[in-house]
Amino acid sequence: MRHAPGPQERCRTVTFQTITTTTDAGVMTVTLNRPDRLNAFTRRMMEELMTALDHADADDAVRAVIVTGAGRGFCAGVDLDDDDAFTAARVDPKATDPAIWADPANRDMGGMLTLRLFNCLKPVIAAVNGPAVGIGATMQLAMDFRLASDTARFGFVFARRGIVPEAASAWFLPRLVGMAQAMEWCMTGRVFPATEALSGGLVRSVHAPDDLLPAARALAQEIATNTAPVSVALTRQMLWRMAGADHPMQAHRIDSRGIAARSSSADAAEGVASFLEKRPADFPDRVSADMPGFFPWWTEPAWEEEPA
Amino acid sequence: MRHAPGPQERCRTVTFQTITTTTDAGVMTVTLNRPDRLNAFTRRMMEELMTALDHADADDAVRAVIVTGAGRGFCAGVDLDDDDAFTAARVDPKATDPAIWADPANRDMGGMLTLRLFNCLKPVIAAVNGPAVGIGATMQLAMDFRLASDTARFGFVFARRGIVPEAASAWFLPRLVGMAQAMEWCMTGRVFPATEALSGGLVRSVHAPDDLLPAARALAQEIATNTAPVSVALTRQMLWRMAGADHPMQAHRIDSRGIAARSSSADAAEGVASFLEKRPADFPDRVSADMPGFFPWWTEPAWEEEPA
Amino acid sequence: MRHAPGPQERCRTVTFQTITTTTDAGVMTVTLNRPDRLNAFTRRMMEELMTALDHADADDAVRAVIVTGAGRGFCAGVDLDDDDAFTAARVDPKATDPAIWADPANRDMGGMLTLRLFNCLKPVIAAVNGPAVGIGATMQLAMDFRLASDTARFGFVFARRGIVPEAASAWFLPRLVGMAQAMEWCMTGRVFPATEALSGGLVRSVHAPDDLLPAARALAQEIATNTAPVSVALTRQMLWRMAGADHPMQAHRIDSRGIAARSSSADAAEGVASFLEKRPADFPDRVSADMPGFFPWWTEPAWEEEPA
Repeated sequence: MRHAPGPQERCRTVTFQTITTTTDAGVMTVTLNRPDRLNAFTRRMMEELMTALDHADADDAVRAVIVTGAGRGFCAGVDLDDDDAFTAARVDPKATDPAIWADPANRDMGGMLTLRLFNCLKPVIAAVNGPAVGIGATMQLAMDFRLASDTARFGFVFARRGIVPEAASAWFLPRLVGMAQAMEWCMTGRVFPATEALSGGLVRSVHAPDDLLPAARALAQEIATNTAPVSVALTRQMLWRMAGADHPMQAHRIDSRGIAARSSSADAAEGVASFLEKRPADFPDRVSADMPGFFPWWTEPAWEEEPA
Repeated sequence: MRHAPGPQERCRTVTFQTITTTTDAGVMTVTLNRPDRLNAFTRRMMEELMTALDHADADDAVRAVIVTGAGRGFCAGVDLDDDDAFTAARVDPKATDPAIWADPANRDMGGMLTLRLFNCLKPVIAAVNGPAVGIGATMQLAMDFRLASDTARFGFVFARRGIVPEAASAWFLPRLVGMAQAMEWCMTGRVFPATEALSGGLVRSVHAPDDLLPAARALAQEIATNTAPVSVALTRQMLWRMAGADHPMQAHRIDSRGIAARSSSADAAEGVASFLEKRPADFPDRVSADMPGFFPWWTEPAWEEEPA
Repeated sequence: MRHAPGPQERCRTVTFQTITTTTDAGVMTVTLNRPDRLNAFTRRMMEELMTALDHADADDAVRAVIVTGAGRGFCAGVDLDDDDAFTAARVDPKATDPAIWADPANRDMGGMLTLRLFNCLKPVIAAVNGPAVGIGATMQLAMDFRLASDTARFGFVFARRGIVPEAASAWFLPRLVGMAQAMEWCMTGRVFPATEALSGGLVRSVHAPDDLLPAARALAQEIATNTAPVSVALTRQMLWRMAGADHPMQAHRIDSRGIAARSSSADAAEGVASFLEKRPADFPDRVSADMPGFFPWWTEPAWEEEPA
């Protein structure tokens, strides 16, 4: 990992083995960087992406994260030449001993990444510049926004390879596109163009290739310029974590705490003052130091628990 | 509160301090009535809205409720001049004692209203005649239908004010518009026009200003004219309460009870007879007296429980 | 039940009393077959449909199931002349004894069918050739895909008959079309054309009458030709069963098992080899014999449990 400070630290680039990250004007751009392999996914790429997200969450200068691919692809799926492809272990498919299946060595790489994305404190934007297949498609589902180049293609191809959807996509995908569309893409394993991704609700917008990153940056800037970082971090967790809640009382308990804490904050005073004075807000609270005392409000479920 | 009986009690108007209600031809129209403040929300408005909903639920002459705003706005959000804005209490944002956060005095006003709406026995239609910002946007999410004037604007502006989405909107909004659209509106805090509300799935239809209330009334009449009130009350609770259920068996247990009870009812006899005789039905059962014996089938979660 | 083997067993037809099934080229077509009654639903039809689904799940030659109607209708709802219409029992609607309501004799017919559909191991495609009302509309919701003829009409008419939505539709419908659209169709009881079903997200595509079954077969063939049967069976259960899960960890636990099992399977070897060799795959694993040892991973909820 090499740290190359830009002029006056305005633009910082970190080069990992399989990705690079560049932080500029409040936005960390993460580039999957194995262009000769269409950015095929490896265990190292998973680990480096998780490290980059740790950096983003810890760095108050990062207001949003963009994930894109180097070269003509976004991510062509798991690199089958990777020794640790899919999982670290190999099991007898017919094994019935629950202890074998509960072995953490069996954990799916994609799911470890999407569960980390689920916990992010910054908005994450996928800028899908080309083919996104397998984990290249499912990793996006735990990001908040998906923008595509008109050269992008998508494929939940698992059933065509004899495996199954991974990266917790069975949880994420129907919540994004509805059950019927999710079933069609996963049961046919079809590779489909950006137009179908747009009409099916997978991506929010489609752009000419040269317009893709500018559009992603504009969305990141819209958030960074106008909103309080602590508010955005709380909002992200509130929305994702209420997606599976049974009753709105569960949201009411948390957003009551959020309103009580935040309406007493320096950010709220600045938010109201800037609104009344019709000027841009300059929010003082930092994610690194000023999350409210009730955060996090949840106990993260552990791998070891009984499946529900 | 003033009760002004209309001619032959056909049209009844009740004037509260911050709202008015008019009941006519089976429809109670609730008008947010602080037009000089763009109907900004206060604790009193919350209390009066809850009283109006109590009246609607208790009055068999009310088959549907329309909520709209007086003047050029729908609701401009919490009135910052209200002493009890947001919550009755002020807390140290960094407090870590769970007892502080569990204090019912911290309960968000908007959530108390949307939880009351969640429990309504009558269909509730939002007729959004102008700007609807903050609680003006989130209060609609627990209503069943949203119609907008082409002059309406919407904003989940919480992150721009340094606070967080409230009124249990983290639970309601993704269930109406999907997770990605909910994230975009809540993370940018953008104020957007009725056209974006329509394309994003927040409102069902957009109308010229003069056509808005007639369209809302037509939808209310479609329900009132054709359906059995007890069936509609049960249907509303079945749909909302299964939104978070884990397994369809949970719905099967309740709708089996509903089918058993209702197919033995006088309403079902009239429903079948009117269908076979190709005439309008005249359903005898009343919400005030004829809800089935298994209703309510749930135990409402209390504020005091542990957050899940 | 008559078994009529086609030439060389290529096409097999089974004639039940209220349905027929024809299996050809990997697709079982189930035809509701009471055309003089617009295929109105009876307890026997429910039982025969469940038997047909048992056959489809047990028969490795069946890769997908199409459900359609004989004559000009799909299914006109429960046959009111059936002695067992709706439920086997009659109850006092005002009964308050929980034991009365928990009686399995009260179970809704439609729900027993949709819970069986929920458990299917093969993709199920509704080809809606004409009017689909009541259970004719709700039975489709637990199928994976809905295609409609432009002569189809749909109606969740329960509130117009004095009863309530059944077949666990309160759980299924909002997950397919969103809460607001589900409320509108169920609260108005309106009968609506295929165009409204398409714009509202209920059906994936609308076809000229003569193109309906070919389009359904093309979708079935797209799945059958390209994918591994065991992968599709697992995918179907993963997606449906995560629809109500609270947290993506629940999906991660299962898809990790699925990836571990299936990436060690003969199917995965063939999936990768055929991909690299750019040829059609010939997957060896069979649903009847080769489901992984952790399947099923769930305990099916029983009728007798406490409602949640």
